[in-house]
Amino acid sequence: MLVVMKHNASEEDISGVVGTITEMGYDARPIPGGQRTAVGLIGNDGRVDSGRLQGLAGVLEVIPVTHAYKQVSREWKEDDTLVTLPNGTVVGGNELVIMAGPCAVEGERQIIDIAHILCGMGATILRGGAFKPRTSPYSFQGLGLEGLRFLARARDETGMMVVTEALDPEGLDLVAEYADIIQIGARNMQNYPLLRRAGRAGKPVLLKRGMAATIEEWLLAAEYLLAEGNHDVILCERGVRSFAKHTRNLLDLAAIPVVKSLSHLPIIADPSHGTGLRSKVIPLARASVAAGADGLMIEVHSDPPRAMSDGAQSLYPEQFQELMEQVGTIASAIGRVVTAPLEAVTPV
Amino acid sequence: MLVVMKHNASEEDISGVVGTITEMGYDARPIPGGQRTAVGLIGNDGRVDSGRLQGLAGVLEVIPVTHAYKQVSREWKEDDTLVTLPNGTVVGGNELVIMAGPCAVEGERQIIDIAHILCGMGATILRGGAFKPRTSPYSFQGLGLEGLRFLARARDETGMMVVTEALDPEGLDLVAEYADIIQIGARNMQNYPLLRRAGRAGKPVLLKRGMAATIEEWLLAAEYLLAEGNHDVILCERGVRSFAKHTRNLLDLAAIPVVKSLSHLPIIADPSHGTGLRSKVIPLARASVAAGADGLMIEVHSDPPRAMSDGAQSLYPEQFQELMEQVGTIASAIGRVVTAPLEAVTPV
Amino acid sequence: MLVVMKHNASEEDISGVVGTITEMGYDARPIPGGQRTAVGLIGNDGRVDSGRLQGLAGVLEVIPVTHAYKQVSREWKEDDTLVTLPNGTVVGGNELVIMAGPCAVEGERQIIDIAHILCGMGATILRGGAFKPRTSPYSFQGLGLEGLRFLARARDETGMMVVTEALDPEGLDLVAEYADIIQIGARNMQNYPLLRRAGRAGKPVLLKRGMAATIEEWLLAAEYLLAEGNHDVILCERGVRSFAKHTRNLLDLAAIPVVKSLSHLPIIADPSHGTGLRSKVIPLARASVAAGADGLMIEVHSDPPRAMSDGAQSLYPEQFQELMEQVGTIASAIGRVVTAPLEAVTPV
Amino acid sequence: MLVVMKHNASEEDISGVVGTITEMGYDARPIPGGQRTAVGLIGNDGRVDSGRLQGLAGVLEVIPVTHAYKQVSREWKEDDTLVTLPNGTVVGGNELVIMAGPCAVEGERQIIDIAHILCGMGATILRGGAFKPRTSPYSFQGLGLEGLRFLARARDETGMMVVTEALDPEGLDLVAEYADIIQIGARNMQNYPLLRRAGRAGKPVLLKRGMAATIEEWLLAAEYLLAEGNHDVILCERGVRSFAKHTRNLLDLAAIPVVKSLSHLPIIADPSHGTGLRSKVIPLARASVAAGADGLMIEVHSDPPRAMSDGAQSLYPEQFQELMEQVGTIASAIGRVVTAPLEAVTPV
Repeated sequence: MLVVMKHNASEEDISGVVGTITEMGYDARPIPGGQRTAVGLIGNDGRVDSGRLQGLAGVLEVIPVTHAYKQVSREWKEDDTLVTLPNGTVVGGNELVIMAGPCAVEGERQIIDIAHILCGMGATILRGGAFKPRTSPYSFQGLGLEGLRFLARARDETGMMVVTEALDPEGLDLVAEYADIIQIGARNMQNYPLLRRAGRAGKPVLLKRGMAATIEEWLLAAEYLLAEGNHDVILCERGVRSFAKHTRNLLDLAAIPVVKSLSHLPIIADPSHGTGLRSKVIPLARASVAAGADGLMIEVHSDPPRAMSDGAQSLYPEQFQELMEQVGTIASAIGRVVTAPLEAVTPV
Repeated sequence: MLVVMKHNASEEDISGVVGTITEMGYDARPIPGGQRTAVGLIGNDGRVDSGRLQGLAGVLEVIPVTHAYKQVSREWKEDDTLVTLPNGTVVGGNELVIMAGPCAVEGERQIIDIAHILCGMGATILRGGAFKPRTSPYSFQGLGLEGLRFLARARDETGMMVVTEALDPEGLDLVAEYADIIQIGARNMQNYPLLRRAGRAGKPVLLKRGMAATIEEWLLAAEYLLAEGNHDVILCERGVRSFAKHTRNLLDLAAIPVVKSLSHLPIIADPSHGTGLRSKVIPLARASVAAGADGLMIEVHSDPPRAMSDGAQSLYPEQFQELMEQVGTIASAIGRVVTAPLEAVTPV
Repeated sequence: MLVVMKHNASEEDISGVVGTITEMGYDARPIPGGQRTAVGLIGNDGRVDSGRLQGLAGVLEVIPVTHAYKQVSREWKEDDTLVTLPNGTVVGGNELVIMAGPCAVEGERQIIDIAHILCGMGATILRGGAFKPRTSPYSFQGLGLEGLRFLARARDETGMMVVTEALDPEGLDLVAEYADIIQIGARNMQNYPLLRRAGRAGKPVLLKRGMAATIEEWLLAAEYLLAEGNHDVILCERGVRSFAKHTRNLLDLAAIPVVKSLSHLPIIADPSHGTGLRSKVIPLARASVAAGADGLMIEVHSDPPRAMSDGAQSLYPEQFQELMEQVGTIASAIGRVVTAPLEAVTPV
Repeated sequence: MLVVMKHNASEEDISGVVGTITEMGYDARPIPGGQRTAVGLIGNDGRVDSGRLQGLAGVLEVIPVTHAYKQVSREWKEDDTLVTLPNGTVVGGNELVIMAGPCAVEGERQIIDIAHILCGMGATILRGGAFKPRTSPYSFQGLGLEGLRFLARARDETGMMVVTEALDPEGLDLVAEYADIIQIGARNMQNYPLLRRAGRAGKPVLLKRGMAATIEEWLLAAEYLLAEGNHDVILCERGVRSFAKHTRNLLDLAAIPVVKSLSHLPIIADPSHGTGLRSKVIPLARASVAAGADGLMIEVHSDPPRAMSDGAQSLYPEQFQELMEQVGTIASAIGRVVTAPLEAVTPV
């Protein structure tokens, strides 16, 4: 951490800063410059509260140099983290992983039918919301436990893994029981009690980026999971809020190479939420793969106009098929392949 | 809701939209225009999922006309909501209400001492975090239940009301037991299970605006509280995220008159989190009152450089005193007054 | 345009709106709804000033339905615009066009040498700034007219076309004399006198998106060019400003398919300014092509660490070569090809 | 400037950075820390291009410590700049200065009549656009030179000073001839040739903040003016772009105290453009004064519903009158006063 002093800071001001740093238990190193002095705080273990220094006399600004996250950083662990799932799918390796399914589980037949279709087209992970966070209290909130059971049934029939969202501690325990990957949604990225619980749940976690989260905040949210002992964490870029309203969110594809350089965790992209418009999902899905994503999460519905939520951003199955073909070619451009389709499993 | 058709939409496209609206249970009204046709959806009860219409053939865009919130709207209830607290403080009336205190409860003596000071200067509500949401898992997370007990003790000694944040369902029940106002923080504005629980807790709720929340989303979050039967809701503007980094957040003071025109709920401002810098808190606190806020929430610490969190944005008590004087004059410019200081109460 | 009335708007309020619309020379059509009335303004020719209606009694909000741009829209002209350059390069067709070169022209040898290298690798258009808009008045501002002459010399030697930025009316005339494409930079996207002049300059124009421009504003800026008679306009997405600082700008790749659906104009991407970091340029360049861009503008410098501006985002020539190979494969995934390299021309 | 090295940067990497800094003509000072080394660049004169360092091997990030602006900074000149106008109005002192008038000059009678009204209510500076930058090429673009003549006539009749916008170099010369203050609008904040011309025009300049400009960029734009020798610069906060659409822009009132601490230049606020809605102009105007603005720029029109532009944000004269009274009281809360009304002057 670097404490930059004002041009006219007095010797006493500088001593004040040095004293405070020392009192906080760190080393202080004054660095005289051409125009002003800066004081380096040495030995920052990620717990320094800059607020205490910010307000001291003579201080112009406090600049963090060390990042506060640790275990998620590539400096902590150099090799890519691979998240291996029971059906053999590995997230974070050379193979691109495709997660697909409807926004919400609407019924048993619906989810099983779409799972068979998607599985046949090469998706190995099934998405579908059982607990839905909805902006309005009057919107459809999901089937809950029943939805989880339908998802589990679809897994049994297809061999696909299940990823679904948890909204609160009790729900998280249920999701951990039925699903293969626990999803923490954008709205809950900084729901720390939920993160801690997910960190102890014994299942991989898919952590979506918050709507206005910096990369630093996102990695710190992941740090909550690793700090509880869960290292099977997959990040998911799903677009951020911006002044522009031509898409629902602004998909930040630069986040993919940036995260890959800062962290060893795998990162996938969700162009369905990232754009909110069916006709933009395909180009942005392709772009995500080209940018280096380890996988995609795509909403597909067998009858989008009748979807109970997010119909406008759900692909038709035939569009998904076409996308899979394009994605295969793009992956080859950067020396990657799409995960091989699952063998058909015998229905229970 | 207005479904705007493309210039070259066919009759069949228009019929498709009309048919879907009808199937959804609403009335459809085609409105031919000079360049294109629009189809009005009549009877929207706030539950229409525009996604279903967005993706239909020939549709250019779907424009919401009715807002999804209801009970929070001024159209639902014309008169201002007044939130009356046990010590007689009323939020939302002509009197400005001042909430003040440290960022976090750090110890019994600390919170009781500052409460006496603030009470003497005219604050009638004491703030102080017992459960702290921290971006890093390695930062100080609050004293928890012990902190709540210290706050209650400060209330007993001074007569001030207590507002403090709840982070999860269990914590919320504790907060509801000890505090007079349950605070839902910015990071949890869309934590719907927490909102539902707060809606049933039987205590007033202070709902901070999310870091990137639109007014519509904020009012819908409040709607979750009212939908559960809790009408004692106070909104709090605390700054939003922007490209500019000269302050921690960008305090959106226009939100105050905008919310007041759309909703009957009281709204206060938090210039401490809104700026993150002590020297900017005072001018922005004054500005908040001038913009029409029903109150202020201000961080004050008896020794800011030694605060365990957010020291940089905490006022010294003497600065708070000066602010109170200025605020009184500004209130008078718009025909308002600051709530009278509490009578000294006999310690328990 | 739709004028949405308040719930409790009186008949008189509605008549007031109808009267104002009529007075403005348009037709008014009241549309009674379940909760409120809206008044449609029929015949909007793109010149309606919503401000006049916004402030009328009883008006809740004014929603634009017709877009204000015309000649740039796909509704005006359905077929893609092809911008054909003297060396045979066509922008906007099935072939991807690659524009490459240093941020600034630094000297005659520098620009001619890099042009030969880039031309050999498949770029057909040479970029390089002669007039540089710099945030600080103390930064290097470009070689001016001399830089234009060096660019022309590089064109003569390689057959590449030249694109370079104009900053003001006089400079624009010079640029139009020496270059093949006149670039209007992000900072000048709404410099209307400059746009008008460019619209009359008789050379194709590359119009970069402003740092905080909506798609609507960007297309309206292009409309200034078409309104003056210049139809050879190429749009360029170069990233927008956001709260996130991990890249210099946030490259908005969804803008590509969105613009292509709204407008017939070609659109390319500039991942160099869009990210500001060399190591992120390649993945985002690939992603731009996958998203459907008609071309790329890439900064390449033969010695980036010694570049006089923007060295951090300039590729080394060998990186550019590798990118060209990847881009070829990605283009094939969507049925496109990269423009064939220019035949070697005999040096003057 | 601080060059932060990666954790695993080699000695060679560090030497590379030191060598490059030396080659650039500055001193390099390696600062070993607990986890990583940083290299300080000493003697930065505001012209260092961080790009050159950013891309070097082993570099994690480059952090600017010195700001690039100089003459505008309070470190360069400690005392507040006072801009004194021919009619005795002083901007930047203890007196609040009120600029008011219609968005656009629409005719001679209109501007003279409103000037008389506003002058009588206490405004000492008349605003009104003769050259209007309009997002659409089809909107009313202003009366041009004729508008300037009408403004000058209004000045002659009332004694008010005239502030009006210049859009391009030729227009700027005209504006400088007729007006007392040359306005540079938000869209042109980084139109550097225009800024240079304004810097040599011999008249005070009002520089509006760009729609997405950081404080640093804004001050650097002002630096262009001072670097040309013009020290009579007034800054104007007019709102920035954000994700929120409840107001036209988001008025950033924290910018006022922040600018006042960084710079000696006066700063006023424009709540008319800052909100875009008449009913929000008054509360935000009050808030601007409470936040410490040196003045206000307010749109007032004698018949807003018939205004040729921005009618929705124009106050009625009687609203302006009420505002002036409130502003007087608020000013008194912070020890300031509103500039005394002009003496009536004899019409020419």
